[in-house]
Amino acid sequence: MTKFQSDKLVVIGVGLIGGSVASALRRAGCVRRIVGVGRSRPNMQRALELGVIDEAAENCAIAVRGADTIVLAVPVRQNEAVLAQLGREAGAGALITDTGSTKGDFVETATRLLAGRLATVVPGHPIAGAELTGVQAASADLFVGKNVVLTPLPENSDSAVESAEALWLSCGARVSRMSAAHHDKVFAAVSHLPHLLAYALVHMISTRPDAGELFGFAAGGFRDFTRIAGSSPEMWRDIVLANRDALLADIDAYAGQLADLAELIRGGDAARLEKILTAARDARQAWLNRKA
Amino acid sequence: MTKFQSDKLVVIGVGLIGGSVASALRRAGCVRRIVGVGRSRPNMQRALELGVIDEAAENCAIAVRGADTIVLAVPVRQNEAVLAQLGREAGAGALITDTGSTKGDFVETATRLLAGRLATVVPGHPIAGAELTGVQAASADLFVGKNVVLTPLPENSDSAVESAEALWLSCGARVSRMSAAHHDKVFAAVSHLPHLLAYALVHMISTRPDAGELFGFAAGGFRDFTRIAGSSPEMWRDIVLANRDALLADIDAYAGQLADLAELIRGGDAARLEKILTAARDARQAWLNRKA
Repeated sequence: MTKFQSDKLVVIGVGLIGGSVASALRRAGCVRRIVGVGRSRPNMQRALELGVIDEAAENCAIAVRGADTIVLAVPVRQNEAVLAQLGREAGAGALITDTGSTKGDFVETATRLLAGRLATVVPGHPIAGAELTGVQAASADLFVGKNVVLTPLPENSDSAVESAEALWLSCGARVSRMSAAHHDKVFAAVSHLPHLLAYALVHMISTRPDAGELFGFAAGGFRDFTRIAGSSPEMWRDIVLANRDALLADIDAYAGQLADLAELIRGGDAARLEKILTAARDARQAWLNRKA
Repeated sequence: MTKFQSDKLVVIGVGLIGGSVASALRRAGCVRRIVGVGRSRPNMQRALELGVIDEAAENCAIAVRGADTIVLAVPVRQNEAVLAQLGREAGAGALITDTGSTKGDFVETATRLLAGRLATVVPGHPIAGAELTGVQAASADLFVGKNVVLTPLPENSDSAVESAEALWLSCGARVSRMSAAHHDKVFAAVSHLPHLLAYALVHMISTRPDAGELFGFAAGGFRDFTRIAGSSPEMWRDIVLANRDALLADIDAYAGQLADLAELIRGGDAARLEKILTAARDARQAWLNRKA
């Protein structure tokens, strides 16, 4: 495996993910200097104080001069504005990768804005997160043992893809590759839909006249079920819009599943209900067993 | 407060809940002798070995003779068969209480089968559980700090309700009272619906041709969201059927919420989407803050 090395790493968006990439690569001894770019002055100040970054740059254009590696870790709908600046300023050979939870939109935007220098633009998605946000939540351990999916472009050089892979391996992650379209279908089902379902339940309950009483009797099951509704609204607004086609298809499929269950409940079909609940329980347990 | 005391406590269904009631009351020094009734011989054997019960009875009719307190902790659809036996054998003054997650069905069944001795039949629901089942998962701590809802009958004597309350206070729980119908509406929203939603998602994913790959990329958010789909299928089959009216109304409301969100996604309405996600995130955080 290629050892990942960077003389100048630029992290655009120094929040939970960007801050954790910086911290993990620094701990692994892979980087000489880390420059951060971010909108929130207090957050950038904190990133400096914590030693997550060595320098805070005012904007992308200034930051990326002389950088060999540029990691985008902004809410996905900001990628377009960031890539527009990078296109003019990033060195021709610099590795550009991102961390967005949706990949089709990044590929489309990068292909449009960075045509001619796509050899080293390698889309990526680390499957790690938390309901916490901001650099204070960042951790050098965030990606240890986690999956990172790369969705390489046809234009990518082998060495750029290997370099992106080496970056994530240095963070302790496991790396796999698939197409951007396939990625977006997979994560619509196992991540984007569950997030939307959790937000929807909390919203439904919180807008009822008896919300106070309902929350008063909500317990541990409700807390775990809705944990992902504690995630960043801005980030998830962007994700659900960026992956809308795959997500809408899954919302439809899920609504159908729910309608089927409602029909069994309405008809009092205990046997089929138990069969479905048992199949789900067993499938989940088998998954946990495989992961363990 | 009345101190709860029992010379002979009968627990019908010695699983997670029944076993935990027995263990908690024994630890609190409230009971002289505990008799368990259950279908599974290995489970009853284990309950004896663990000292959760002192004696395993072959059936309810034998067990409840001379008992002053009878706690039902079976899947809710078995309550009818159990109550039919109790009606003939339970002492006239014995406190009969249950632990079911639905209360309207228990009230209906008890009113029908135990007419004439309803003074001491006090329906109850401890809001505690786990995805684990069986007596080996039981714990004297299960109810500490948890809510227990009693839904007293108009026929109840004050002393019987106080006795049921004392029983749960002795287990370390907090006790509140409401009508059975109100209880079932509250728990349809904050418990029964989320369970059904979690089962539905796992079932949808597990029945796809690419289920293996999907589960391979499911992460911590998915695990927490679906934790409640690890619960007992038999128990939840009974709950969703017992509370079908309130649950079907909530499934409808939820499907509407989801359709509204899908419409915003389809239309690319970023502002309204963010508003809803933010409101949900904030409502959940406020709830956590109140609980803490």
